[in-house]
Amino acid sequence: MSELDQHRSLNHSLNAFSEALKSGRFVRMRRLLASLHPAETAHLLESLPPKERLVCWPIINPELRGEVLSYVGDDVRTGLMTGMDTADLLSATEDLDTDDVVDILQDLPGHVMQEVLRAMNSQRRRRIEAILAYEEDTAGGLMNTDVVTVRSDITLEVVLRYLRKYGELPENTDSLYVVDHQDKYLGTLRLSQVVSRSRSLTVREAMSHQVDPIPANMSDHDVAHRFEKHDLISAPVVDKDNHLLGRITIDDVVDVIRDEAEHSLLSMAGLSEDEDTFAPVKKSIHRRSVWLGINLLTAFLAAWVIGLFDTTIEKLVALAVLMPIVASMGGIAGSQTLTLVIRSMALDQLNDKNQRWLLRKEFLVGMANGVIWAIAIAFVTYLWFGNFLLGIMIGAAIIVNMTAAAVAGVMIPLGLKRIGIDPALSGSVLLTTVTDVVGFMAFLGFATLFIV
Amino acid sequence: MSELDQHRSLNHSLNAFSEALKSGRFVRMRRLLASLHPAETAHLLESLPPKERLVCWPIINPELRGEVLSYVGDDVRTGLMTGMDTADLLSATEDLDTDDVVDILQDLPGHVMQEVLRAMNSQRRRRIEAILAYEEDTAGGLMNTDVVTVRSDITLEVVLRYLRKYGELPENTDSLYVVDHQDKYLGTLRLSQVVSRSRSLTVREAMSHQVDPIPANMSDHDVAHRFEKHDLISAPVVDKDNHLLGRITIDDVVDVIRDEAEHSLLSMAGLSEDEDTFAPVKKSIHRRSVWLGINLLTAFLAAWVIGLFDTTIEKLVALAVLMPIVASMGGIAGSQTLTLVIRSMALDQLNDKNQRWLLRKEFLVGMANGVIWAIAIAFVTYLWFGNFLLGIMIGAAIIVNMTAAAVAGVMIPLGLKRIGIDPALSGSVLLTTVTDVVGFMAFLGFATLFIV
Repeated sequence: MSELDQHRSLNHSLNAFSEALKSGRFVRMRRLLASLHPAETAHLLESLPPKERLVCWPIINPELRGEVLSYVGDDVRTGLMTGMDTADLLSATEDLDTDDVVDILQDLPGHVMQEVLRAMNSQRRRRIEAILAYEEDTAGGLMNTDVVTVRSDITLEVVLRYLRKYGELPENTDSLYVVDHQDKYLGTLRLSQVVSRSRSLTVREAMSHQVDPIPANMSDHDVAHRFEKHDLISAPVVDKDNHLLGRITIDDVVDVIRDEAEHSLLSMAGLSEDEDTFAPVKKSIHRRSVWLGINLLTAFLAAWVIGLFDTTIEKLVALAVLMPIVASMGGIAGSQTLTLVIRSMALDQLNDKNQRWLLRKEFLVGMANGVIWAIAIAFVTYLWFGNFLLGIMIGAAIIVNMTAAAVAGVMIPLGLKRIGIDPALSGSVLLTTVTDVVGFMAFLGFATLFIV
Repeated sequence: MSELDQHRSLNHSLNAFSEALKSGRFVRMRRLLASLHPAETAHLLESLPPKERLVCWPIINPELRGEVLSYVGDDVRTGLMTGMDTADLLSATEDLDTDDVVDILQDLPGHVMQEVLRAMNSQRRRRIEAILAYEEDTAGGLMNTDVVTVRSDITLEVVLRYLRKYGELPENTDSLYVVDHQDKYLGTLRLSQVVSRSRSLTVREAMSHQVDPIPANMSDHDVAHRFEKHDLISAPVVDKDNHLLGRITIDDVVDVIRDEAEHSLLSMAGLSEDEDTFAPVKKSIHRRSVWLGINLLTAFLAAWVIGLFDTTIEKLVALAVLMPIVASMGGIAGSQTLTLVIRSMALDQLNDKNQRWLLRKEFLVGMANGVIWAIAIAFVTYLWFGNFLLGIMIGAAIIVNMTAAAVAGVMIPLGLKRIGIDPALSGSVLLTTVTDVVGFMAFLGFATLFIV
C-alpha cells in the first residue's frame, strides 16, 4: 500500500469513524479503532470535540489506553483521565516506559498519584519516583530509567553473550552505557561498535567518550539544543556525582523541540502551548479573556492619547481617517523585528556582543523602510486630501513610528528577558502599546504644531 | 565539567572570540575556533554579523568547513559559499554524508553544482544524483543513500561476520535493511535484534515489518508526522516498485519539524523561515518592504472606511478617540482563533467533520467574549464621556466585531488552504483587514444611525 493510499485510508477511517459516532454504531467504532496504531488513536481523539472524546474513550482497548494517553497533549489527557479510577490508571500504564508513566502521573492530583504509585511493584515505583524527583522540564524529568549497562573490563564477546541472555532490549536502544562498580558513568558503547568491531576488544577499547553525559538538572531547552547540535539519538543522564541515572532518547526531545517552537507562536497570541483547539467553549472563553483584558488596557491608553488631541481632530477630520495607518505600519514593522528577535533568543543566538549590532541594524532597517513608505503614504495622502502639509506630517510620523517600532522590537524582548519575563508572551502587547502611542502622538502632535 | 560550566564556557569562548575578532588577533581566533565542535562553530557564525562571518570563514579548518556548512541555515550558507571555488567546495564536502552534500549543492548555481559533481568519484556522484532527482521537500530529498543491506536467508551469525568485515558503520545506524536479489525492500533488522537474539536465527526470522517503508515522493511534512507519531529513529525509503533507495534518520527529520513549527511563527510576520537575523541591512529592507506594502493596502482600505463617516466624526470627535479600541479588540480575538486554527492545520487535526464544530465553537467564544468586554467597555465609555448612547454603540460594535473576528479566524485559513495559498503567510493580513473594516464600519455606522 503506498503512503498516499495509507494517508487516504487514515483520513478515510477518521471520516468513517465520525460517521459511525454520529449514528451511534458502537460495534463499527470499536472495529475501526482496533485497526489504528495508538498514535493514530491519539490523533483521532485530539481531533474530536470534548463530548465525542469521552464517548470514544471507553471503547478503546484498555491495554492500549496508556499508550494512547502518552501520545495526546496535556490538556486532552487531563480531560480523558478525569473519569479513570486507580485500577484503570494502573492497568493503562503498566506496559509503558517509565518516562511516559511519569508524564501521565504528573497530570494527576497528588493523592491519586500516590495511590497509583503504591499499587505498583517496588522496583517500578522506585524507578518512577527517581524521575518524579526532578522537575518536568529538566533532563531528569525527561529521562527513561531502563538502561542497559556494562562494565569496562569485559570483551565484546562477553557483551554479546550477556545481551543474548538479557532478551528484548528496551525500545530505541542504540547504545549501552559503561559504568564502574559504583555505577559511575564511564562511556558509551554503541551497538554499531559491538557488531562491527573485533569480539576480543574490551569494552574500554571500543567505547566512545564523544557524548558527554547530561546532568539531571539541565533544562529541557538545553537538552534539546545539545541533541540538535550534535545529532544525537540518545544520551546518558547522570547526577552531580556522575552516577548514571537513565537515558534520554530523541523521541522525547522531539516533543520538547516542537513545544518550544510552538510556544513562541501561541504565546504571541496569548495562548498556551498545551491549548486544545477543541477545548469546551466555557474553558476557552475564560482563558482568552485574560489576554483580551490586558490588550484592552493598552487600547484605552492609545485612546487616551488620541483624546489629548480631540480639538485638533475636530478641526481636521482627515487626521482621524489617516491615524490608523500610522499605528498599523508601526505595528507591522515592529512585530517583524520582535518575531525575529524572539526566534533568535529561543535559538540562543543573541549575546552581549551582537545585541548592539542587531539594534543598530534594526534601527537602520526601520528608518529606511520608514522613509520609503513615508514617501508613498505622503504622496497618496496629498492626492486624496489635496493637503500638502498633511502629507508631510503623516510621512514624518511614519518615519518616527517605524524607527521607534524597530528599536522597541529589539529592546522589549531583551529587557523582558533580563527581568525574567517570557518575551514571547508579553512582547507583542508591549510592542503594540509603543507603536500605538508613538504613532498617534507623533501624527496628531505634528499636526497640532504645524497645521491646525 | 558540569553542563552549566560547559554552557558558560561556550558563551565564554564566543565572547572571547568576539574580543579577538575586534582586535584582529587571528592566532587567538584560530585557537578558539579549533576548540569548538563544528556545530558550535556553525552557531558562532550564525550569531555573527555578515562582515565578521566572512572574516572568520577562512580561519576555519578547511576539513571541517563542510560539516560547518551542513549545520548553518540556508541563508547564512549561501553567504559563506559565494567566495568558495569548486576545489574548496569539493574538499569541504568530501567527508560529508550524502544528504548533507545534497543540501549544500542545492544552494549552488547550476553550473557550479555540475562542476562539483563532475569532480567527484563516480559512485559518490551516482548516489548524490539519485537524491538530487527528488524535490528537496520530499522523502527522496531528505534521505541518505549510505545504507547497509543484508539478505533474508542468512543467519545472524553471518550478519555479524559480515559487519565485522564491513568496518565502521554509517553514522546513526540503528538498523540494517533486508532486501531481495532485486534490491526490493523486505524488512528491517534492528541492531538490537542482531545482538540480543540467537545467532542461529535467520534474518527473515529476526527482522521486523513494523516500520512501513517510506515512498520517495512522500512530502517531508508527512515524513515528519510519521516519525513523530511512531517514535522512529530511522526508516527505509523506497521507489514506487519497492526498491530500497536509502534511509531517513531522525536528525534530518528534527530539522523539518523545527522548520515547520517556525514557519507558522515567522510567516505570520511576513518573514521566511530561512530568515537570517543578522542579514545585511539592505537585504532586510528589501525583504520586509513587500510585507509592509501589502499591509499598507489594507490600512488604506480601513482609512477609506473611516473616511465614509467623516461628517459623523466631525460632529462627535469621541468616535475618533474610541474607534481604535473596537478595531484592536477584534484584531486580538481574531488572531487568537487564527493562530489556533493554523497550528491545528499544521498538525493535520482538522477535517470536514470537526471544522463545523470548530466554527460553531469559535463563534460562541467570540460572541461570549464580545458580550463580556462590550459591557466593560461601554461602562468605561459612559464614565469617560458621560454619553450613555455612545457606550451602547461601542458595546454593540465590540460584539459584532469580535464575533466576526472569530468567524474570520476560522474561515480565512480554511478558505486559503482550499485555494492552495499558505494560510500562515496571508491569514493575518486578511484577518486584520476584516477586523478593521468590520470594526470601523460597525462603530461609526451605528453612531451615524443612532446618535448623530
